[in-house]
Amino acid sequence: MMLTDGLFGDDELGGVLNAPAQLSAMLRVESALARVQGRLGIIPEDAAAAIAAAADGLAPDPAGLVAASATAGIPAQALVGALKAACGKHAGWAHFGATSQDIQDSGLVLQLREALAIIEARLQGLDATLGAKAGAFAAQPIPARTRFQIAAPTTLGAKIAVWRTPLARHLQRLAELRPRLLNVSLYGAAGTGAALAGRMGEVRRVLAGELGLSAPEVAWHASRDGIAELGGWLALVTGSLGKIGADLILLGQSEIGEISAGTGGGSSTMPQKSNPVAAEALVSLARLNAGAVGTLHQAMVHAQERDGAALAIEWQTLPGMIIRTGAALRLAQALAATLAPRPERIADSFARDRGAMLAEAAGFCLARQMPRAEALRLVGAALAEMAGNEEETLAGALSRLAPGHDWARLLAPGNNTGDAEAQARQQADQTGGIP
Amino acid sequence: MMLTDGLFGDDELGGVLNAPAQLSAMLRVESALARVQGRLGIIPEDAAAAIAAAADGLAPDPAGLVAASATAGIPAQALVGALKAACGKHAGWAHFGATSQDIQDSGLVLQLREALAIIEARLQGLDATLGAKAGAFAAQPIPARTRFQIAAPTTLGAKIAVWRTPLARHLQRLAELRPRLLNVSLYGAAGTGAALAGRMGEVRRVLAGELGLSAPEVAWHASRDGIAELGGWLALVTGSLGKIGADLILLGQSEIGEISAGTGGGSSTMPQKSNPVAAEALVSLARLNAGAVGTLHQAMVHAQERDGAALAIEWQTLPGMIIRTGAALRLAQALAATLAPRPERIADSFARDRGAMLAEAAGFCLARQMPRAEALRLVGAALAEMAGNEEETLAGALSRLAPGHDWARLLAPGNNTGDAEAQARQQADQTGGIP
Amino acid sequence: MMLTDGLFGDDELGGVLNAPAQLSAMLRVESALARVQGRLGIIPEDAAAAIAAAADGLAPDPAGLVAASATAGIPAQALVGALKAACGKHAGWAHFGATSQDIQDSGLVLQLREALAIIEARLQGLDATLGAKAGAFAAQPIPARTRFQIAAPTTLGAKIAVWRTPLARHLQRLAELRPRLLNVSLYGAAGTGAALAGRMGEVRRVLAGELGLSAPEVAWHASRDGIAELGGWLALVTGSLGKIGADLILLGQSEIGEISAGTGGGSSTMPQKSNPVAAEALVSLARLNAGAVGTLHQAMVHAQERDGAALAIEWQTLPGMIIRTGAALRLAQALAATLAPRPERIADSFARDRGAMLAEAAGFCLARQMPRAEALRLVGAALAEMAGNEEETLAGALSRLAPGHDWARLLAPGNNTGDAEAQARQQADQTGGIP
Amino acid sequence: MMLTDGLFGDDELGGVLNAPAQLSAMLRVESALARVQGRLGIIPEDAAAAIAAAADGLAPDPAGLVAASATAGIPAQALVGALKAACGKHAGWAHFGATSQDIQDSGLVLQLREALAIIEARLQGLDATLGAKAGAFAAQPIPARTRFQIAAPTTLGAKIAVWRTPLARHLQRLAELRPRLLNVSLYGAAGTGAALAGRMGEVRRVLAGELGLSAPEVAWHASRDGIAELGGWLALVTGSLGKIGADLILLGQSEIGEISAGTGGGSSTMPQKSNPVAAEALVSLARLNAGAVGTLHQAMVHAQERDGAALAIEWQTLPGMIIRTGAALRLAQALAATLAPRPERIADSFARDRGAMLAEAAGFCLARQMPRAEALRLVGAALAEMAGNEEETLAGALSRLAPGHDWARLLAPGNNTGDAEAQARQQADQTGGIP
Repeated sequence: MMLTDGLFGDDELGGVLNAPAQLSAMLRVESALARVQGRLGIIPEDAAAAIAAAADGLAPDPAGLVAASATAGIPAQALVGALKAACGKHAGWAHFGATSQDIQDSGLVLQLREALAIIEARLQGLDATLGAKAGAFAAQPIPARTRFQIAAPTTLGAKIAVWRTPLARHLQRLAELRPRLLNVSLYGAAGTGAALAGRMGEVRRVLAGELGLSAPEVAWHASRDGIAELGGWLALVTGSLGKIGADLILLGQSEIGEISAGTGGGSSTMPQKSNPVAAEALVSLARLNAGAVGTLHQAMVHAQERDGAALAIEWQTLPGMIIRTGAALRLAQALAATLAPRPERIADSFARDRGAMLAEAAGFCLARQMPRAEALRLVGAALAEMAGNEEETLAGALSRLAPGHDWARLLAPGNNTGDAEAQARQQADQTGGIP
Repeated sequence: MMLTDGLFGDDELGGVLNAPAQLSAMLRVESALARVQGRLGIIPEDAAAAIAAAADGLAPDPAGLVAASATAGIPAQALVGALKAACGKHAGWAHFGATSQDIQDSGLVLQLREALAIIEARLQGLDATLGAKAGAFAAQPIPARTRFQIAAPTTLGAKIAVWRTPLARHLQRLAELRPRLLNVSLYGAAGTGAALAGRMGEVRRVLAGELGLSAPEVAWHASRDGIAELGGWLALVTGSLGKIGADLILLGQSEIGEISAGTGGGSSTMPQKSNPVAAEALVSLARLNAGAVGTLHQAMVHAQERDGAALAIEWQTLPGMIIRTGAALRLAQALAATLAPRPERIADSFARDRGAMLAEAAGFCLARQMPRAEALRLVGAALAEMAGNEEETLAGALSRLAPGHDWARLLAPGNNTGDAEAQARQQADQTGGIP
Repeated sequence: MMLTDGLFGDDELGGVLNAPAQLSAMLRVESALARVQGRLGIIPEDAAAAIAAAADGLAPDPAGLVAASATAGIPAQALVGALKAACGKHAGWAHFGATSQDIQDSGLVLQLREALAIIEARLQGLDATLGAKAGAFAAQPIPARTRFQIAAPTTLGAKIAVWRTPLARHLQRLAELRPRLLNVSLYGAAGTGAALAGRMGEVRRVLAGELGLSAPEVAWHASRDGIAELGGWLALVTGSLGKIGADLILLGQSEIGEISAGTGGGSSTMPQKSNPVAAEALVSLARLNAGAVGTLHQAMVHAQERDGAALAIEWQTLPGMIIRTGAALRLAQALAATLAPRPERIADSFARDRGAMLAEAAGFCLARQMPRAEALRLVGAALAEMAGNEEETLAGALSRLAPGHDWARLLAPGNNTGDAEAQARQQADQTGGIP
Repeated sequence: MMLTDGLFGDDELGGVLNAPAQLSAMLRVESALARVQGRLGIIPEDAAAAIAAAADGLAPDPAGLVAASATAGIPAQALVGALKAACGKHAGWAHFGATSQDIQDSGLVLQLREALAIIEARLQGLDATLGAKAGAFAAQPIPARTRFQIAAPTTLGAKIAVWRTPLARHLQRLAELRPRLLNVSLYGAAGTGAALAGRMGEVRRVLAGELGLSAPEVAWHASRDGIAELGGWLALVTGSLGKIGADLILLGQSEIGEISAGTGGGSSTMPQKSNPVAAEALVSLARLNAGAVGTLHQAMVHAQERDGAALAIEWQTLPGMIIRTGAALRLAQALAATLAPRPERIADSFARDRGAMLAEAAGFCLARQMPRAEALRLVGAALAEMAGNEEETLAGALSRLAPGHDWARLLAPGNNTGDAEAQARQQADQTGGIP
């Protein structure tokens, strides 16, 4: 437990990934293995029943397995010891033909399946919330900012559309990677299934069916691309949410404040402050997962048929990445659900800009009637006037420099948002978001 | 140019990614944009023709654009300046409605498409080579090693099958990510297409068709998941090849030498040495790309509508990752194509092991006739005899301790490789590899 | 708690870094601050006494502060709330003039000081153990291996000397970085100490004295080089231990086995195996900390006077790095303490090499009497003879090709270890290791 | 050459690190080695003179050595081949007793020494510039911002002081690490110096003297902490500069614009924009080096006496880190030299804040005369009035709520900057900066 778990932890995913859950997942594999082997006549039926019952009933204290795990170098082996002890005279048929990593990996996959279901649901929830918000604020003008400078008007809905589109892609990626990841492992010590004398493939397929997993022919003991791909996907998700966090931080600065989202954290000494705590956490989580994915990829250099040094990198990296992804989705949902524009602050932004952000638009407007070079020269002259007179606006200056247009209307932000509203509405439609 | 480019560089991919190629790709986008806008009546036809001709004919010296790129912070902007200078009186219609990043990103995507075609072909080639080798050596026994210890027999073909299976998955992943990556960018300064007054979507779609790309509705200026996903894929590929490299290094150690692959590097002073230079390079490339993918993911925290700090991380990271992937595939192909077992060294490995690696197999064998505990006790006793007598083998010891079996035959490595040969042949069949 | 904590965790360091220890360290700062401010007449003496007593007596349940920490975005702020609640009418004088990060960082530094003392002691212990082992095995010949090939003879003591020398440098680095790291923080909300009206510097210096820390004039709220430097140091330590782990793994392979160290982990199915579990863990820990140091450095891009997104990256990264360093030192000590050569396996290695590793030495020997080119030609001829006859040795071949030397003596490994023994004895002397 | 080299490249450091410079450094080592060995009577004097002359005169085309480097796996070996070819009959005495890595590493150290001198000079220059600027703007009030919210007043000089203090520490760190890094390598194939029959230490010491380096007794072929430490230091430097960049970006936002520094990049389409191109590049460079340092640390897991896979990670990582550090220092110097406040924008910031940032100060002020709880209640009431009336200021509200103070004066930003001016002046004094 860390004091920061409220931001960076996740109780629900923690419950899927903690030590008791890991032991439970591995025991579920051992239990299913025994039942399947009994059914196929590979081990005696009574032994199968006894082992399955023992595995189903076992709930060892994780602390009691730490020392044995350290000696073995792999927790599954310590658990197998405990399981055999609980099987009495049938111990010899427990874990029959499997190697520790088969159980460790199969258990892991069961945990990952559960974790991914949670994450997917949160991702879908966030997707829907952002879709609805895109629709709700589809037409709300707001400045776009590029390279930390005001650029031109867009709408808040279009901003949200930019946040949402990657989420749909992440859901698609998840659907694609799942079949590559959700595989049982049952290949025996050398990956050849030799211990079961030609019947390993059969047992593996039935076991996979039992557990709702797939059963590739070739061992993935040492081919860890599925794990690294998952890590990459988690970092893609947190990266997209980190972008939302960065935007909310910047939009929520004291001087800008065009959006409200969530409840700001107060200061221990400064009563006027409203810190963007959750948005900052989204950025932190993105950067932490970005770093972790690089570490996780190091584990792909996996020596020979099994490499304890490489495996442990996965064990120490992946659970944290999953927790962080869950935390980021939770925080993002809380922010998205409460997201709202602060129209008076937005109006103030436009007023303070005095139309400078519409210089490009004015140029395009003029270019319809004169050479572009001449149009750009006129806009430059108007900007120069604005620089010399803090009360001047672009519309005002152009009204003198290029009379004959209704510049106030032409340069109203809401008349210069191009396809922004349409983009936002399209996102809303895709997610069923109701404006 | 670096002295190590023979290992870590790649001329072919370098040619796709270097500065002239980058300029050429961006000019191709500008040319197509002008032609499309001319055709759609958005800019005058004669201007369109002139701009397209200028863009097609331009081949600026990259060195001449470095200073302007530094000032602009984005090379596309420097190039647009050069292009406009070449367009004479039509300059005002060049780059019409686009923003620099539209051109930068669209050009990048054209380069990526070309690079991925090269990489895919190499991946397919390696896949086929490994398939053929899996078939050719499907039945060649060789020790499997887990956690850096001899484990049990497998076959060389099965080892190669483990190397190959991720490649097929990488090809599948590539097919899936391509449509998410190969998108044109044309959204204008704020992502709203406002400059083209409602016709940006139409221009974007026709331009995309012209360039053979897709045209998403919402700007991906600031949603960089496609780029990060590509980086992850590249690191997955080099990670899988790094695993092959690690295995070749370990199999090629002086004391093991069970495989030959490629031509070893000599030593400046030690004439007897044959260094696994290419295999080491595969490991280096994997670790370099693993690190780079973590850095690239940092660029997903992309502020607002455009973030120069984040973009530059991509620019400085992605080309190197692609080059490294190409280099790794090239080196892996050279190793795979010359891969061969050294049967006398393998036989020596089995002889020196004296059957210890078949202890598990012996236990399973005995357990068919007695309780497993008793079987394991007998095997333990045999191993103890071997420990006390360097001439003793497991078969020999068991012939005394558990007579009545043909232990020499039962424990012959080739009779204990389980499904290894079948796994290898299956891989060979999948790739059309001819055993 | 994770099942792998026996390898990758550390109870002693965990006790310094866990949530109760963090709260206790921060309360120690608040208590000292109140006492100092009372003594200097900045707050009323009775308030000072009451606050110090409250802080000294407080031991809040960490779980109870998680929610408040999440709201505040910084645990110190949640703790200050709890402290004030415990101070009754004196609450207004608690935490007087400080900002949350002052307390968070000062508490952190107290924890780091304690953790570094533990780590330093372990590093010194390992240094002494390796020094003693270098001395003990100073003259034990063993093959040196470069690029995974047998190169030439060295001694086990010299190998250990190579492992030890970085440790002395790490101790030196630690002494250098400590004064840059062990600083109190007390600068107030904006880093200007404005709340104490010109007396912040004085309070800071006295508080620093009270806590045994230094007190720089300029706030380090946003200058995090000391933290990143510490992370780099931790990764240097684990990197050096990872090198030891990699060497032990390779020396302990079934086919080599020239060294024993620690107790190997067994296999769940292969009774003959002795897995290098602790050595593998050293490699894993090195790679994990290597990845983490890259992430930690991202936190140096710390915006403005305080950046919650950057700070949280430190919080989520640094404790794990410290734990891993402690774990690596513990494992390395256990391996080093039990390290011993297996002379019969080493002799076997030399025998199997048949003198090939002395090809360079033979060349130098011959070159004293003939042109080097001629000498190298003769050595090449001898190696060729060896290649054609598995019973031939280099000494044997040269006895025929270049008679007149006592080749058996000249090419005895123990006569070709150069300065290895002297290097080893020097290390032993430096650490007081007794050969 | 990349189009972005104007930002991310560095001609001066590139000239120290490119292939010709690398070859030249290695030849300098070979030349000195021959001369020293001739002088000590280890090789014939005429051979020594001839080899030194050949090495001094050689300037091989790097491209011609790429293929040989790829075969050898280490460029030094390819160069040794070229050197021997140039030595004619003396070839046998060239590179005598050395191994390729000795030359590669010694040459590298010569290059690093030169690169570090350049970097140190730039760091000192930046330190002086920032010191002068801290002095010049020591008293210029400006808002401090924490967690992206306005916090309280500070001065621009104090901000600059925060930027500067790490630079002084970096210079100190550099002085400390140099002796650990600037070592010659001359240990021979197995690190034992066996080839020189007891005289390797002597040759190494004299060679080190010749090259101005140190000569540790134990080989650092496989102990790479000095290299990783250097990488960490480079990342510390760019990290500190990245913080400056982040601050300049945020201070330079359209809505804030309190500082000008450098010349902003224009936009290809938006004439009003002034992009913070150099400041963004500082952030990019920091994040790139942060990522790279993690990768470089992976190379510390260096197997056995020499590990080609680990070495190549250094080769492919370190030069880029050095270039990036040089580029960052160059860009930071250009920004620092032109740094100036924009007082009217700062005044506007204070005006728009209406004194809210002085809420803490007002509370401290009131607390001198009443219980703190009461003081905080009054301040809260004043803030509430401000929230309801956009024209109201904190001073105005308090003048009514807590009359009897000259609130306008008490809450003037310039009267609430605490020790900021003193901090800034101290920095100016330390660097000789003239206010």
